[in-house]
Amino acid sequence: MSQEKSLYERLGGYDAISAVAHNLVGRARADELLGRFWAHRGSDGIEREVQLLIDLLCNVSGGPLYYTGRDMKTSHKGMRISQADWDALMKHVNATLDHFQVPAAERAAVVGFVESTKAEIVEV
Amino acid sequence: MSQEKSLYERLGGYDAISAVAHNLVGRARADELLGRFWAHRGSDGIEREVQLLIDLLCNVSGGPLYYTGRDMKTSHKGMRISQADWDALMKHVNATLDHFQVPAAERAAVVGFVESTKAEIVEV
Amino acid sequence: MSQEKSLYERLGGYDAISAVAHNLVGRARADELLGRFWAHRGSDGIEREVQLLIDLLCNVSGGPLYYTGRDMKTSHKGMRISQADWDALMKHVNATLDHFQVPAAERAAVVGFVESTKAEIVEV
Amino acid sequence: MSQEKSLYERLGGYDAISAVAHNLVGRARADELLGRFWAHRGSDGIEREVQLLIDLLCNVSGGPLYYTGRDMKTSHKGMRISQADWDALMKHVNATLDHFQVPAAERAAVVGFVESTKAEIVEV
Repeated sequence: MSQEKSLYERLGGYDAISAVAHNLVGRARADELLGRFWAHRGSDGIEREVQLLIDLLCNVSGGPLYYTGRDMKTSHKGMRISQADWDALMKHVNATLDHFQVPAAERAAVVGFVESTKAEIVEV
Repeated sequence: MSQEKSLYERLGGYDAISAVAHNLVGRARADELLGRFWAHRGSDGIEREVQLLIDLLCNVSGGPLYYTGRDMKTSHKGMRISQADWDALMKHVNATLDHFQVPAAERAAVVGFVESTKAEIVEV
Repeated sequence: MSQEKSLYERLGGYDAISAVAHNLVGRARADELLGRFWAHRGSDGIEREVQLLIDLLCNVSGGPLYYTGRDMKTSHKGMRISQADWDALMKHVNATLDHFQVPAAERAAVVGFVESTKAEIVEV
Repeated sequence: MSQEKSLYERLGGYDAISAVAHNLVGRARADELLGRFWAHRGSDGIEREVQLLIDLLCNVSGGPLYYTGRDMKTSHKGMRISQADWDALMKHVNATLDHFQVPAAERAAVVGFVESTKAEIVEV
């Protein structure tokens, strides 16, 4: 692993990050606890949201992408996301990283980024 | 009632239409059947959506407003909105129009517009 | 003038503010110095921008409108707006307020708001 | 070249398309004739527009990207883009494709796509 490469490159670039985002959202939507957040929404709204997740991950990992979505606090405020929701999400984040066999260093960086957003997302 | 005035003016303009939209969404969110569509969403997303409803109503009724939201088909596709959902919505539309004592001619125009979107919204 | 009414109401509400915004942008577009900012842009982009100006003015004056546009600093960064541009704009703001015969108290409030954004807009 | 691969893949994926879009917009902005379209605009607006160009190219070439921007007709209407503007653009498209040494088959596909949008973009 070259430290000179961005996390975006080390993760495999746009397509790899897109695959990770779709895999993760698929797991979350199928989750008994988390599924409620997508249960009654339209496909255009969900696809836009998945795209914004891809865009955010590419942007923060150093990819050539201009993120124009809302910040995490604004987009999650009022959803009443709990610690139990967060724990369920992190379980799926790990399952997704297992699925793609992401190496330890990149895995730690992704998990670290996700954890860094927790304070802006968990409300109750 | 002057037929020369736009429906927007006859309804009382922006503030009246904003009040109608907020009243209607409030009833729909509190409805046992319809509430699921808003149950686990964030406040920013909901407020944006209510604003787009106001914008759409002002625009189609002839008000000075440029609508930039999605069309009804795109924004509702995949929500699996049923005939029963639609019936519940129309009940609330009528309750909202009662609440604001909207006169018969304007009431018919509003109900007619809402009914005109049904084919693009009801899926199951 | 009742101090209990919002500036939005005292200005005449949405339609009055929409008319003010359209009048002001019309003057700015026709201005020899300022016209360059709109000279080669498409109509959809310009209409969206005028709508965002209406939305911002309604929102900050206390109207029932949820503003989802960018902040003034982000939306003007890099335009190289000068003090001479600002002076030309303020001339048109005053001409627009003259045109609609806006009373002194409301006029002072509008001019005060516009002046409060100057530091975020003027760059050179 | 495998015909089973999408054009997106054959072009080199997201990063290659992002580099192509930035290179092309850079040439267009520096062009004596075309530069007027970007001359007095803010950096956030320009970066959003370049990102939408990347998104559009990735989407139409088969990449894993959900395009949420406006259609070409809506976004260019009123810009008064001429045949001479178009000719200048096509010159830069070819220079960009030269720069990245895009192979003949992919080059023909890109040029073909750009040409297919001409009727929606050129107005005068």
